[in-house]
Amino acid sequence: MDTKSTETQSTSLVERASKVMRSYFPILEWGARYTGKTFSNDMIVALIVTMMLIPQSLAYAILAGLPPEIGLYASMAPLLLYAIFGTSRALAVGPVAVASLMTAAAASQLASQGTPEYLGAAVALAMVSGLLLLAMGFLKLGFLANFLSHPVIAGFITASGLQIAAGQLAPVLGIHAEGENFLSIIISLWHSIGAIHIATTAIGIGSLIFLFWVRSGLKPLLIRLGLNAKISDILVKVGPVIAIVATILIVGGFGLADKGVKIVGKVPGGLPKLSMPPMDMALWLKILVPALLISIIGYVESISVALTLAAKKRQHVDPDQELIALGAANIGSAISGGFPVTGGFARSVVNFDAGAETPAAGAFTAIGIAITTLFLTPLLFFLPKATLAATIIVAVLSLVNIQALKQTWAYSKSDFAAMAATILVTLIEGVEIGLITGVGLSIVLHLYSTSRPHVAVVGQIPGTSHFRNVERHTVVTDPAILSLRVDESLYFPNARFLEELVNESVAANPAIRHLILECPAVNTIDSSGLESLEAINLRLKDGGITFHLSEIKGPVMDRLKRSHFLEELTGKVHLSQYEAVASINPDLAKITHEANVQKEM
Amino acid sequence: MDTKSTETQSTSLVERASKVMRSYFPILEWGARYTGKTFSNDMIVALIVTMMLIPQSLAYAILAGLPPEIGLYASMAPLLLYAIFGTSRALAVGPVAVASLMTAAAASQLASQGTPEYLGAAVALAMVSGLLLLAMGFLKLGFLANFLSHPVIAGFITASGLQIAAGQLAPVLGIHAEGENFLSIIISLWHSIGAIHIATTAIGIGSLIFLFWVRSGLKPLLIRLGLNAKISDILVKVGPVIAIVATILIVGGFGLADKGVKIVGKVPGGLPKLSMPPMDMALWLKILVPALLISIIGYVESISVALTLAAKKRQHVDPDQELIALGAANIGSAISGGFPVTGGFARSVVNFDAGAETPAAGAFTAIGIAITTLFLTPLLFFLPKATLAATIIVAVLSLVNIQALKQTWAYSKSDFAAMAATILVTLIEGVEIGLITGVGLSIVLHLYSTSRPHVAVVGQIPGTSHFRNVERHTVVTDPAILSLRVDESLYFPNARFLEELVNESVAANPAIRHLILECPAVNTIDSSGLESLEAINLRLKDGGITFHLSEIKGPVMDRLKRSHFLEELTGKVHLSQYEAVASINPDLAKITHEANVQKEM
Repeated sequence: MDTKSTETQSTSLVERASKVMRSYFPILEWGARYTGKTFSNDMIVALIVTMMLIPQSLAYAILAGLPPEIGLYASMAPLLLYAIFGTSRALAVGPVAVASLMTAAAASQLASQGTPEYLGAAVALAMVSGLLLLAMGFLKLGFLANFLSHPVIAGFITASGLQIAAGQLAPVLGIHAEGENFLSIIISLWHSIGAIHIATTAIGIGSLIFLFWVRSGLKPLLIRLGLNAKISDILVKVGPVIAIVATILIVGGFGLADKGVKIVGKVPGGLPKLSMPPMDMALWLKILVPALLISIIGYVESISVALTLAAKKRQHVDPDQELIALGAANIGSAISGGFPVTGGFARSVVNFDAGAETPAAGAFTAIGIAITTLFLTPLLFFLPKATLAATIIVAVLSLVNIQALKQTWAYSKSDFAAMAATILVTLIEGVEIGLITGVGLSIVLHLYSTSRPHVAVVGQIPGTSHFRNVERHTVVTDPAILSLRVDESLYFPNARFLEELVNESVAANPAIRHLILECPAVNTIDSSGLESLEAINLRLKDGGITFHLSEIKGPVMDRLKRSHFLEELTGKVHLSQYEAVASINPDLAKITHEANVQKEM
Repeated sequence: MDTKSTETQSTSLVERASKVMRSYFPILEWGARYTGKTFSNDMIVALIVTMMLIPQSLAYAILAGLPPEIGLYASMAPLLLYAIFGTSRALAVGPVAVASLMTAAAASQLASQGTPEYLGAAVALAMVSGLLLLAMGFLKLGFLANFLSHPVIAGFITASGLQIAAGQLAPVLGIHAEGENFLSIIISLWHSIGAIHIATTAIGIGSLIFLFWVRSGLKPLLIRLGLNAKISDILVKVGPVIAIVATILIVGGFGLADKGVKIVGKVPGGLPKLSMPPMDMALWLKILVPALLISIIGYVESISVALTLAAKKRQHVDPDQELIALGAANIGSAISGGFPVTGGFARSVVNFDAGAETPAAGAFTAIGIAITTLFLTPLLFFLPKATLAATIIVAVLSLVNIQALKQTWAYSKSDFAAMAATILVTLIEGVEIGLITGVGLSIVLHLYSTSRPHVAVVGQIPGTSHFRNVERHTVVTDPAILSLRVDESLYFPNARFLEELVNESVAANPAIRHLILECPAVNTIDSSGLESLEAINLRLKDGGITFHLSEIKGPVMDRLKRSHFLEELTGKVHLSQYEAVASINPDLAKITHEANVQKEM
């Protein structure tokens, strides 16, 4: 379906230019209709999202192995840029759990946490991810995200969630544990479990219990208290702020920081300085693969949230423009000293539920974060790291979906294999190798499933011109004619299969003198398919068999005419299977229901 | 088509076991029917092929950077083992040009030519290739060869041929040049062109001219002299032996070896000692990727030759058993100190044309090579390396097919892109990266082409129950009902496309209340497709639109019943598109040719 074709021929150059501008800068579209009422709406939304984003940005920066203020930096420029370039009205970009974990995994292969090189690697990841997304957007390469099949994404997110949760158990318990994958983190936790810090654990476990209660018990309570469901939902999402304020007061009030409870400490105030990340090509090449994985995982999550929210109000989301918007957001993050960002699920839903009418809500959220960075960072001094870790654990455990394994098993064994492999390799080896394994395996399984298309030997239904599978219908056949119907395009995944099938069929049936390939389901024939047809034609010729085709579709025929195949073909191309058989054996075609009626295997 | 189902239930256990044995050991099949006449036939064939194989095995060993006797070693055990396990009557295995080049590329990354480590790496490549082929055979993984599309193989072989020819120009001219790819070899040649050795060049260029004449001029001459075409063909293939004998006599007779003409020198006589290659797992892991590439390239070439020759006599070739046979041949090569082998095109054709009736001809060829190794190696002392290089150049230039680029361009631009990229990267960077680039690009292009399936908006043809594309037919539609027909399976390459398409269609048509997906061409729905359908269903529900399906195929419906999708579906699954529309708008369905008839864009 080409909706572009509806464009009228009379469109003037100016109109076209304006249309292109509006497609690259959606802000021109919604900005023109912006009113005072929309403004006050968007301001309220921004306030709510800011309160939700502050603890998240601090927590995800720490998860990525970075100083907490980097999370705040990554929550300003990206939101402003998304407001200019984004097509979703409700998407809220910023640091997210899985991308933060992947940032940590990639950066820690290049430098140690806490070093300027580590921070530089994280910033470079945002830059390269941004450039890759931008390139994919301009070159319309969004289809590359298709490499991630649903089972692979689901498995990867479940495994990442488990790894993040395991990693955050250490700060919750006041111990030290580290590792590049779930398995090594668990082993590390096991070894240091004896060193649990009681006060930290009290705060951490307390926060965990509170946050889980907020998720499960607060909403029913609020509804009983008379609030409507939507407002209750929003308050539930802002719940972590309560935990944060409470534990700041406890740690500050009881002087627990001096008793070994780890706190965020001094968060440098002030806006980030803008600067281009160094054009270190050697570094950029080293991080190319992780940056690509982060980009694609981020994009897939983001576009899925955007489409879901857009559908509720029948709004349009442009997938290619979304790549450009996320690319700009990541480049913005890098230039303001931040790390990779993408559209977050929970925060976008809050944005939507709170009534965000335009991307301006995101811009106002950025201003909220800027005010926080300028004036409120001293308030975060006593914020215990255990509380942040607890908010992460509660957030990521909602991503873990072991149930999906069971459903996938019931639905498709090969999808289950891809999903299980992704989960296992991610848990045992780490995020990058886990994701690559999943993608590789799902491509291999896809190739396998398309490499053996359904092929039926067909015969004529007596008294008709219809041809059907000899295994399912009582049909008439001529032992000298083999008619095969291929229910798939002829392209490289199955090209060799067809050659082998013909070799097998001909070797097994010495009486054959003619082979007809019925092609009503062949939507395309690529060069490999053509090569196979040519090889089959030559081999059959050597064996004294003529090769015919029937029911070739128009566009496929057009293309075949551009090759030498039709000149070399020993038989003919027939409009219908009936014509093909009739041209070879006119008597058989006329047979109605006497002789030769058979139910072959 | 499942030919296995023809097996009768009454087959006894003994018969089954015997059948399995015969399928794994085809020698049991043809060996039982072996007669004296077949024997004398096979002996003559073996003599001809031995004469052709001696110079080839020496030359390809040198091409692989190995001592010449290694080529002879690789031409004994593999032939014997293929005779036991192979299903092709005419395939002649042994060292081939492209696999030798790939062996050199892989081994020289691990050690310098001439060192025991280099030889060890070459032997290990044969071992690992053999094990991989064996595993692919037993696990029925032959479909992995489908990763190599025809344009990629054709491009790769052309580029390899150019690289080999360029590399062999140095010994022909008596100069030294080396490089890991065509480009660096050409540069290296350019720098040493001044040091041309006159006597060597005379022999080398002389051999080249003679060999080219043998290819083009000898056959017509022989036919004029009264020989038949087939015998002339065979004599042409044995032509290199004449060049070799002549140049041995010239170099020996005129004492040119003392004047700087490089000769093969002392080739150690005697049969190779059998020994297991060291189980060096670290080394095996390092060579895993090149060994896999060598295996698959070798298999693809070999099976293609086998199928072509089998077709001429309507013989059966079993692709999985061929993997096992080539695996055994390579392991045999490794155990007898040889390097990777596969079925060679030219030599198999000679084998076939000379009348090889059974794989025993290959076994007798192995005996011929063994006799050569035992008694005739002193005769090779004065064999100039320039002559061997000339035989390689003439052989590989026949692989170079630049014309194919033009044909592929005419037929398919995306296949052309894959082919051109394979050629360029191979020439500029080297064989492994070239092949990997080609495979990667063809998978990406395949994914792209399947990621945007044909989708049509359909309407009812007045007076009928048929639904057709609104862009091509005059049909009736209801503005509240959008009917989409998808002409492709719903699976991960296009799952996201469908979501985006529905988002776009719904955002563009505010009047829509019902969406019907007509699925007559949907052969399968994988987990990603199911997830998309679920997301579409939920999103449409949020937008107040019911979602219907029609004409779901039986096996697809069976699978959908194993998921929760049908329970969640807001609409229904209808047997036909007509029923679907009739259930929503009974009046419209009855309309024959009045109102609303339209020819939409």
